[in-house]
Amino acid sequence: MTASAPSASATDRVFNFSAGPAVLPESVLREVQEEFLCLPGAGASLLEISHRDKLFVEILHNAENTLRSLLGISDDYSVMFMQGGATLQFSAIAANLLRGTDKTAQYLLTGSWGKKAIKEAKKEGKVVTAYDSADTNYDRLPTAADYTCPDDAAYLYYCSNETIQGVQFGSEPECPASVPLVSDASSDFLCRPLPVDKYGLLYACAQKNAGPAGVSVVVMRKDLLDIADPNIPGYLHYKNHHDNDSEWNTPPTFAIYVLGKVARWLQNDIGGLAKMEELNREKSQSLYKIIDESNGFYKGHAQTDCRSLMNVTFNLPSEEMTAKFVSEAGSHRLAALKGHRSVGGIRASIYNAMPREGVQALGDFMTDFASRNSG
Amino acid sequence: MTASAPSASATDRVFNFSAGPAVLPESVLREVQEEFLCLPGAGASLLEISHRDKLFVEILHNAENTLRSLLGISDDYSVMFMQGGATLQFSAIAANLLRGTDKTAQYLLTGSWGKKAIKEAKKEGKVVTAYDSADTNYDRLPTAADYTCPDDAAYLYYCSNETIQGVQFGSEPECPASVPLVSDASSDFLCRPLPVDKYGLLYACAQKNAGPAGVSVVVMRKDLLDIADPNIPGYLHYKNHHDNDSEWNTPPTFAIYVLGKVARWLQNDIGGLAKMEELNREKSQSLYKIIDESNGFYKGHAQTDCRSLMNVTFNLPSEEMTAKFVSEAGSHRLAALKGHRSVGGIRASIYNAMPREGVQALGDFMTDFASRNSG
Repeated sequence: MTASAPSASATDRVFNFSAGPAVLPESVLREVQEEFLCLPGAGASLLEISHRDKLFVEILHNAENTLRSLLGISDDYSVMFMQGGATLQFSAIAANLLRGTDKTAQYLLTGSWGKKAIKEAKKEGKVVTAYDSADTNYDRLPTAADYTCPDDAAYLYYCSNETIQGVQFGSEPECPASVPLVSDASSDFLCRPLPVDKYGLLYACAQKNAGPAGVSVVVMRKDLLDIADPNIPGYLHYKNHHDNDSEWNTPPTFAIYVLGKVARWLQNDIGGLAKMEELNREKSQSLYKIIDESNGFYKGHAQTDCRSLMNVTFNLPSEEMTAKFVSEAGSHRLAALKGHRSVGGIRASIYNAMPREGVQALGDFMTDFASRNSG
Repeated sequence: MTASAPSASATDRVFNFSAGPAVLPESVLREVQEEFLCLPGAGASLLEISHRDKLFVEILHNAENTLRSLLGISDDYSVMFMQGGATLQFSAIAANLLRGTDKTAQYLLTGSWGKKAIKEAKKEGKVVTAYDSADTNYDRLPTAADYTCPDDAAYLYYCSNETIQGVQFGSEPECPASVPLVSDASSDFLCRPLPVDKYGLLYACAQKNAGPAGVSVVVMRKDLLDIADPNIPGYLHYKNHHDNDSEWNTPPTFAIYVLGKVARWLQNDIGGLAKMEELNREKSQSLYKIIDESNGFYKGHAQTDCRSLMNVTFNLPSEEMTAKFVSEAGSHRLAALKGHRSVGGIRASIYNAMPREGVQALGDFMTDFASRNSG
């Protein structure tokens, strides 16, 4: 093993449409690579230094502060970094806000992730599925007229973007002022500005739009931190993480470090979340346009009014044609396009870090493929 | 940002005695760095590929198989990769094996980590502290005569190496055959061969001796997987992780990948765990010898019969002298030597990846420092 320059160059890289873990900004990857052996000032790799080392504490605080700045998060909210993914949050939310109360937790069920969240919440208390679009295979989202939420609910839960189905709320669902709104923002976190003060709690596992697998961001209104029974499992108890600045136990240091760099890329290289949204609209619309103008060759899964900026889901005329699409796309260096088995077809995940050029290349391929295989 | 060779060279690296996250093999770090931008065959960084991608699934299985081979783990045991550190395991063990039973969980309390484990277990059921060395500030370990464990206990729990105090069991504590022996092996996992078949469950967060922060290895006898009430929080339920090959939800892919490389380094570069133990004995004994021959200038914290191979803890004549030691060591590129506040003094963590040269340099410094500052 020599200390020579990395053997794999950028030209080996494909356009990666994976739903998560997913594409990251190449400039961030290069920065991490460059200082991987020896973090400046540390004399060791970031992987090797204590989470209590002042260098890492500064990295953690910088990551938090960049998120606060990007999203305009006020001091009324705690920002925490946790492990266990969205799945652990499914339990933590209900353990903190529902267990031991007589209240109901209200869930808007709009896709696969909401379903899993409900299953865990039911272990902790009374759960009401206030809306469910299973009948149409989760291709749509509710309006305020489609559900009710009592004023004394423990919380109202929704998933802002269902990755598998490709449906995304354009804005927050209606929620009584007395009820904390809780959102699984895993797959569209940081894709656009967010009115954080509308939320009681919002969380996102990082590996879709914000960093590598292994860290989740939790943004929680501080007055909700004291509701939980202190006898819930300690790792699930948000107050432990808040009171110790995400260092109640050893945090996933590398994942936080990369997430911090991605957040800074958004702020400095992209220019903030409004600009990011603009780019995401442009990227997604270019693909939806090709779908809509394909004379039915491509059929979008999501209803047009709730199409996701992040996950473009569509079907082709047959399974054979889908397989052919995936295979030919692969030889054009367009990777990880196969849809989830519950929806079938194609899923192009075009998170923040997917460059315009990648979407353009996919669009060109789609147009060409349709013209060669239609009618 | 250019694609030039990494700017920080190996010569910038210090000898890093951090208790965790801690030193990793430099050859592993270089391998990771080299393929960081583009994992061979993936066209993307390891950070960017799906956990369901066959390349990652192979990485995960290879990591598991290398651990099985190193430790001689039979098919009677499951090997799982989880998030949340030892702290999450404190709750998971009791939630799986104690909650809902009439049994008692028996704990041998020999240091700071055992204390935390007991606190979480008490939330789940009846806990008995069968042994407690608090009176002597956890400087010793029990023999079989020092505690009893009933035949019908839910499990007997101990921590094989207390990082803060520097006490390590030389072999497994006595345990009735009917009782699952449970071990927190976080800080000495893979430091020596282990008779895994004596255990019901053993686990280790990786960031001390096996990899980066963010992943824990759980080795569990398969017949224990079915004991748990299925209504415990899903992420804590071992069966979910076992049944899905550690992919019940997105695992911490990067941490598993690095852990796999560290395990391979142990197997191929070191030559296995027996050889590793030999090296660890040699390294630790060289420091204990200097302590014992310092005419009382250095005072070891742990009783001599339970000294740790991993964490060498000792005090100096005064706090001022300790501060001077840490500061002068720093200018000799010997880093992170300050002891934990509960024990004071110095803690030199000399995990598997600490090279002989590092221990030699510390030993030379200790000898010189003592001669300059004694009497």
